[in-house]
Amino acid sequence: MVGATIVADPTTVHREAELAWSGVTGRISYLGPVRGPARPGDLVGAGRLVLPGLVNAHTHAGMSLLRGYSNEEPLHRWLERVRAFEVRMTRADIRAGLRLSLVEMIRSGTVAFADMYLWDSGLLADVHDAGLRVLAATAVFGYDAVAYPAASPQTGAQVLDGTPALAAEFAGDELVQVTFGPHAPYTCGAQLMADVAGRAARHDLAVHIHLSETARELAESRERHGCSPIELAAWTGLLAGPVHIAHAVHPDDDDTARLAARGVTVAHCPVSNLKLGAGIAPVPQYLTRGVTVGLGTDSMASNNTADLFEEIKTAALVARGVAQDPTAVGAADALRMATQGGARAFGGRLSGRLAVGEPADLVLLDVTAAHATPMPDPVAHLAYGARGADVTDVVVAGRPLLVQGRLTTLDEDGIRDEANQRVARILGQAD
Amino acid sequence: MVGATIVADPTTVHREAELAWSGVTGRISYLGPVRGPARPGDLVGAGRLVLPGLVNAHTHAGMSLLRGYSNEEPLHRWLERVRAFEVRMTRADIRAGLRLSLVEMIRSGTVAFADMYLWDSGLLADVHDAGLRVLAATAVFGYDAVAYPAASPQTGAQVLDGTPALAAEFAGDELVQVTFGPHAPYTCGAQLMADVAGRAARHDLAVHIHLSETARELAESRERHGCSPIELAAWTGLLAGPVHIAHAVHPDDDDTARLAARGVTVAHCPVSNLKLGAGIAPVPQYLTRGVTVGLGTDSMASNNTADLFEEIKTAALVARGVAQDPTAVGAADALRMATQGGARAFGGRLSGRLAVGEPADLVLLDVTAAHATPMPDPVAHLAYGARGADVTDVVVAGRPLLVQGRLTTLDEDGIRDEANQRVARILGQAD
Repeated sequence: MVGATIVADPTTVHREAELAWSGVTGRISYLGPVRGPARPGDLVGAGRLVLPGLVNAHTHAGMSLLRGYSNEEPLHRWLERVRAFEVRMTRADIRAGLRLSLVEMIRSGTVAFADMYLWDSGLLADVHDAGLRVLAATAVFGYDAVAYPAASPQTGAQVLDGTPALAAEFAGDELVQVTFGPHAPYTCGAQLMADVAGRAARHDLAVHIHLSETARELAESRERHGCSPIELAAWTGLLAGPVHIAHAVHPDDDDTARLAARGVTVAHCPVSNLKLGAGIAPVPQYLTRGVTVGLGTDSMASNNTADLFEEIKTAALVARGVAQDPTAVGAADALRMATQGGARAFGGRLSGRLAVGEPADLVLLDVTAAHATPMPDPVAHLAYGARGADVTDVVVAGRPLLVQGRLTTLDEDGIRDEANQRVARILGQAD
Repeated sequence: MVGATIVADPTTVHREAELAWSGVTGRISYLGPVRGPARPGDLVGAGRLVLPGLVNAHTHAGMSLLRGYSNEEPLHRWLERVRAFEVRMTRADIRAGLRLSLVEMIRSGTVAFADMYLWDSGLLADVHDAGLRVLAATAVFGYDAVAYPAASPQTGAQVLDGTPALAAEFAGDELVQVTFGPHAPYTCGAQLMADVAGRAARHDLAVHIHLSETARELAESRERHGCSPIELAAWTGLLAGPVHIAHAVHPDDDDTARLAARGVTVAHCPVSNLKLGAGIAPVPQYLTRGVTVGLGTDSMASNNTADLFEEIKTAALVARGVAQDPTAVGAADALRMATQGGARAFGGRLSGRLAVGEPADLVLLDVTAAHATPMPDPVAHLAYGARGADVTDVVVAGRPLLVQGRLTTLDEDGIRDEANQRVARILGQAD
């Protein structure tokens, strides 16, 4: 690609630059001044801004058929409604929701996502075939709990026992990584968390868990365990290995110190936390104290879009408004969270930066529209002005998944129609 | 238009419905069940959601050349930077920024905007020709102050004296309304505010003013006047007539009661308030206590887009997150602010609803994309899922301004290129 403005990372912008990669290795082979005219088949650089592919640090991609299903009910009622929908879902419904999410993620510039839902070989192959990267955890709600009765007959114990084999099956896959997924302390309990910590260490696998999402969770943890959810995780050994935690809305000072010291990655989900009324995570404090923070959309039942540009803008805005300080979180901070921050959860495989030798995971944005005019600062545009609909091209591991607005690996119309038909069937079963 | 889902107002949704209007009156003549097949020239209804045109309750549309110019500096430094840019702007620069804003507003579904900047006959004619509705106030910063030296040689006193004549010039214009625009208490002072109150009453004109934007403004008002900015406005007589106030972030209980009792309309600007660190207006309290609230984007120097769908989502989200209550502000509340709420500032000329006899001001959204699938609740989709880029068609007073993504009244490429050239010149003058 020749002649584009390239945001290699939030503090490195190349203007009128060239980027090239190897189709064999899927890695960037050149980034710098233009070496010569564009060749046939090159991506169009003029009027385009190039950025590292975005990383969605926390999703439940298989839940997308629940988009817009429950929007402003109190949390306990929302959970009831979501569960009542989920028990009607088959594995095929989850697959349809997953594929709908893949379309939406590619279209809005996401190249990798850290997910917790139902995963098996076939669903992971779907992600591989679509060309996105996934860090996949099947949620466990307790040893005996069966999370999705209509979809999977597996108990939590069976999922835990099967996770290392699933991980081994994809060990050679560049796009797919498998982790353990204990849902949360309040659903799993301390014993299961400690068990997972041991299994993760034995099998050299990471852990993805929800921690400290609501004030109620914090209060109940203090009452039941005498400590915060994050302290409980530390106490069970869960923070000893690579662990990726969603939300972390209500930490105390010691919790923040723990997260920083253990190198825990946090998936900040501002839209979901606001929409469900969970609260507002102390992101400026996390960044100041060295906690690695990524951005997640959470599920479409609590957002309702997978557009990470919304999370970037919301993350910056909310921190500044709450602090009444326009310097609390800046454009570079927010963009870094959505790229390098989330990439850290992928355990060294991704950097979230564009540089020679790094994976060719990149996004092209149209910057010719009125809302992108003028654009004195490309990083500020990415944080405050850009939106998923501006994405024209997406490349992952050197493979083009979106080319001038056309998906190369997925049939969008068919996926949309199937999703609508399945939702009609599920809602038709409702009372 | 035949066969669309029509959100007539946030609590009235017609499915597979028909909407018709008179090209002569520019008003809706039919809304209800489909009466027959679509005729040639009808708007395409299939795959479309129809909603009332959005009303941007607070803008400075002539400032759009400052988009992205200062993004995360402390407020006093931001103000200095903005002023240093503005003094280099000519009237032609302001016109170029205005026309850029008009493109962006039409493309994202806005049909009317309440604005405070530099206005004159020619600029108002530009809005009329583009086909949008405007409630226009030229900002006054004091009797002797000259707001935009390079653009206008007028003092505040001259603007105040000239406003009734400008209003009279457009008295018969369906699209253009003129108001007084004292900038804010801290720039104008109490005497000028009282003077404006008298002039507004004599000439039967409304007033648009910034009030209670920052905690610093509140503290300084208490020190200087012994009362809040809103109380000062009441005391000067400014709340006796139709008055439209921007921000209102820091009211006390008495202020809220005043705003409700006087029928004041508030332009809530959540993105700008968050981005500049001004704080978070108590919207749930306003709605509970009967204050009319609209949504504004404020200027592109503090946002950086004119997309009201972002304000709708942000207004709902932030209220819910701050209250830690997912029922604090709902989808219908947020959509109502962006339509009926803002319309109230236009003094009875607009309702913000689709109904027989109302102006044919409407927007069509594409709802066939992955991010709109499924769509069990169209109002929830408008609040949490839709975005400006989904807008395909816009009609104002029966006149199509956007038809299947093509602007009918403005040359987007020419406007964009002119804007970029002017910014390059202005920034080239910078030190």
